[in-house]
Amino acid sequence: MAAYTASVTVRLKPGVLDPEAETTERALERLDFDLEELRSADRFEIDMEADSPEAAAERADAMAGRLLANPTIHDYSVEVEPAEPAAGATR
Amino acid sequence: MAAYTASVTVRLKPGVLDPEAETTERALERLDFDLEELRSADRFEIDMEADSPEAAAERADAMAGRLLANPTIHDYSVEVEPAEPAAGATR
Repeated sequence: MAAYTASVTVRLKPGVLDPEAETTERALERLDFDLEELRSADRFEIDMEADSPEAAAERADAMAGRLLANPTIHDYSVEVEPAEPAAGATR
Repeated sequence: MAAYTASVTVRLKPGVLDPEAETTERALERLDFDLEELRSADRFEIDMEADSPEAAAERADAMAGRLLANPTIHDYSVEVEPAEPAAGATR
């Protein structure tokens, strides 16, 4: 068993309206930032013990399918990394 | 100029309470999933035209500092990739 961090990113499917992202995009444009499009997503970073990265990915995938994502409106992707000794933020 | 997608991940600073993440963690445990900890984050995927990946990262960093993150409670990190021809979801 080793410690892994599985990151599940839950995005709205293309075509699903996201008024919050549109508002954020317009606010950035009003601040004179140059951008084409902004999409927002939810990200879940899950620390777990597993036998292999594959096992951790499989478990995170099952979590997304059962609870974290709504298949009617969401797509999701899973990435797995060995857990950092000092878990936390980058900046 | 080339097309890039900058991903800004906005996380709560360590120590800032996140009741929603705690609720999600407990719901997963009730579904018999084995996990140590769950953290939630907001992710913004921003399509933009820029001269270089460095310029795209710098602009996304400025967007996070001005609008996307609240420095009192948030940390953030920025990743830049060339924009995918067919932007969209993984699954």
